[in-house]
Amino acid sequence: MIHIDTEKLDVRQAQHRDYLRQLEGIIPKQTPNIVLVFVDDMGHGDLSVYGSQAIRTPNLDKMAHEGLRMQDFYAASPVCSPSRYSLLTGRYPPRGFMHFVFFPTVEDTPMSPLYKKWNSTFLPHGLLGLLPDEVTLAEVLQKVGYRTGLFGKWHLGDQSPHLPNEKGFDHFFGSYYSNDMEPYAYYRNHEIALEAPVDQTQLTRNITTEIKDFIRQAVSKDQPFFAYYPSPFPHTPVHASEAFSGRSDGGPYGDCVEEIDWSVGEINRLLEELGVQENTLFIFTSDNGPWHEGSPGFHRGRKYQTWDGGQIVPFIAKWPGTIPAGRVTDEMAMNIDLMPTIMNLVGIPQPSDRVIDGVNILDLMTGKVNQTPHDMLHFVKGDRSMGARHGHFKYESGQHSDNAAYHHMMVEPMMFNLKTDQNESYNLIPRHPKLTAKFEEAIEAINHAFATNPRGYKTEK
Amino acid sequence: MIHIDTEKLDVRQAQHRDYLRQLEGIIPKQTPNIVLVFVDDMGHGDLSVYGSQAIRTPNLDKMAHEGLRMQDFYAASPVCSPSRYSLLTGRYPPRGFMHFVFFPTVEDTPMSPLYKKWNSTFLPHGLLGLLPDEVTLAEVLQKVGYRTGLFGKWHLGDQSPHLPNEKGFDHFFGSYYSNDMEPYAYYRNHEIALEAPVDQTQLTRNITTEIKDFIRQAVSKDQPFFAYYPSPFPHTPVHASEAFSGRSDGGPYGDCVEEIDWSVGEINRLLEELGVQENTLFIFTSDNGPWHEGSPGFHRGRKYQTWDGGQIVPFIAKWPGTIPAGRVTDEMAMNIDLMPTIMNLVGIPQPSDRVIDGVNILDLMTGKVNQTPHDMLHFVKGDRSMGARHGHFKYESGQHSDNAAYHHMMVEPMMFNLKTDQNESYNLIPRHPKLTAKFEEAIEAINHAFATNPRGYKTEK
Repeated sequence: MIHIDTEKLDVRQAQHRDYLRQLEGIIPKQTPNIVLVFVDDMGHGDLSVYGSQAIRTPNLDKMAHEGLRMQDFYAASPVCSPSRYSLLTGRYPPRGFMHFVFFPTVEDTPMSPLYKKWNSTFLPHGLLGLLPDEVTLAEVLQKVGYRTGLFGKWHLGDQSPHLPNEKGFDHFFGSYYSNDMEPYAYYRNHEIALEAPVDQTQLTRNITTEIKDFIRQAVSKDQPFFAYYPSPFPHTPVHASEAFSGRSDGGPYGDCVEEIDWSVGEINRLLEELGVQENTLFIFTSDNGPWHEGSPGFHRGRKYQTWDGGQIVPFIAKWPGTIPAGRVTDEMAMNIDLMPTIMNLVGIPQPSDRVIDGVNILDLMTGKVNQTPHDMLHFVKGDRSMGARHGHFKYESGQHSDNAAYHHMMVEPMMFNLKTDQNESYNLIPRHPKLTAKFEEAIEAINHAFATNPRGYKTEK
Repeated sequence: MIHIDTEKLDVRQAQHRDYLRQLEGIIPKQTPNIVLVFVDDMGHGDLSVYGSQAIRTPNLDKMAHEGLRMQDFYAASPVCSPSRYSLLTGRYPPRGFMHFVFFPTVEDTPMSPLYKKWNSTFLPHGLLGLLPDEVTLAEVLQKVGYRTGLFGKWHLGDQSPHLPNEKGFDHFFGSYYSNDMEPYAYYRNHEIALEAPVDQTQLTRNITTEIKDFIRQAVSKDQPFFAYYPSPFPHTPVHASEAFSGRSDGGPYGDCVEEIDWSVGEINRLLEELGVQENTLFIFTSDNGPWHEGSPGFHRGRKYQTWDGGQIVPFIAKWPGTIPAGRVTDEMAMNIDLMPTIMNLVGIPQPSDRVIDGVNILDLMTGKVNQTPHDMLHFVKGDRSMGARHGHFKYESGQHSDNAAYHHMMVEPMMFNLKTDQNESYNLIPRHPKLTAKFEEAIEAINHAFATNPRGYKTEK
């Protein structure tokens, strides 16, 4: 049983406050606006620019053509809350005990007993959200003068001190958790803005309006902004407004994705109208692979699995003048890299008391270099690394069998060459003993670290 | 609990004997030789002609270019024994109570207790193999003068009266079950030819030699032949001889497939040498989709699942002068069609006392028509239909969730348009209520038939 040490947490929170205080004196190198769209459960194959034949996404396609498309970009987890943690902290999920998703902690709904049970089954005892000593991307940008907003799904705790406004967001418009959890209300900061059950058909429109207002306001005050847009969709249940319903060849799921595409287009048009496109880094990606619906493209597996289909996601980034138009790369990167990358380009020093697993990938994004800075990326599930990638080789230490009759069975370790084997079908372990050993050692080392010093504080043994 | 009624079986065996006796008087329309290669667990994406970038299969590619490649050909089951039953009888697996694979019935090995348990868990009580009243493709060809041989894996019972020589094969060289089951010996007819444990690295070579001898002998006697070649591979454990080991970019699995490709090439070269190519229908297909290794191509799922990845398989057919070179079709067909097709072209009347689910697809194969004769094909697992395909629409009535945490959960019914959604990702049920109802009714109807008259005898209520 993992024990979340309260006394240590006090010390760490003090370190955290000191670090943030130091940032107030920083003069940023540059302060581009950041728009970060983080969709929910969208697969690698769900956009036309990634090969979808059923869904049309002209706005995202255009954005990719005007900027960067990464073919081998990974979410840090095949499941929601841990991936969100990694995006905002630059750290692998076990650093924050993010072993699974959070369920609502409300006490008075028919689902409450079940939610309580799931929270205590899948997560460490007493963990109710993002720990207060974690440094988030929102906090550091806020400290150097950005106006920060979150529009959509938080899913890192539904109680104080785990709420968005407490972790760096000046403005919050959204829900605390997934759109299939109850009660599903929308908050504006700490007040209910839309009563549960929210009319989900209007959500993408509502969020788009709110985010546009936020951008207009920040620009009118000449303040740089960080607009974090974790869409509730296309997580099930999928919804779209009337204008998008029944339109897509991808059914209701496709309608929902096409409305997200419209929303991205709306934001881009506003940036253009306000004349801030050149000074805005606009990123679009997903929190993990698709669940029951949605397409993982050519990749094996889906959500909850560390096969590529569970973690490889669309990644489109536009920053005219900085990212060249039409850039495409299949070098690997992961969403743990976004915080270090953005902090680096703004000129914010990283906290030095803890491990940050991500690295700065700006040069890879702009094409200044064509090789990933990562020697190895880990694929984490629960409290441990289940596999890793090095170059175009991927190692899987063990997966549950795909089928019901044998589901208790773990598949043998396998290693794949993704260059010739995109869907992880041919085991090359017998061919490459040295590389196999390298993977095994790296996975053992990080799992030892996750077990002995999960939080990754540097002063600890 | 299903009861296999012994008394009825006697009556049916009498009907079966009468039917075969009648065939002795038949004068065939034509007697092309038939070579039917039926590989084990090979996926839709494992051959270069089907898009593999890791495995080179020049002989199969050439065969496809000289004949027909079907893009949407299905095994009748996502698992071994049921698929073999369907291939040889033209009937859906529940007609023969083929709900799962057979495990060895030997009494004296360390695995015996477990095998016994699995046989009684997954199969109807007392079912030990292909029931004696079933009409097999081998039997009917034998009756009209073909020399029939089986080379490789039987897997329809390891005891009399369920053995290959008792069900229509003049010659048998192979094993009774899968290459991961013990004891794994090779038989020539009823005698052990290769002691357990067989050296599996030599198996593809051994089988190739045996099948070539058989073909030479039949041709020398001017006798038409049916060479059924159910390869033990690439079912796990994969093996290849020294000449093929370490050669493929697909690892040991790829080596194994490349040696199968060589074997197909050897047979083709012999047919050419003997001058019988024009008079030989040569078919290559697989018993189900890939298991842990092997590629399902762009398709969702794997072995044991009724997603396309579990049942869609390579299908290549060559018959110079009859099947035009380079023909490709994505019209659907299934291995239940092979027995009716072959019987029809030879001119053998089907048994009239029972349901045959397959239909004659010769015109589709030759290109005389471009539309499948099937209004609907069913995807069967255990004792029932789990889904169906009509045109390019596929309906799945429910699948187990892909992930461990939710594995008890059934995914909601979904319907897909395979034209734009090859990997079954976008549910169109809300779009097409009439088509949904058609599927639901058809699945309910066949499941009612499987429950009330599983054997499909026509005289029964």
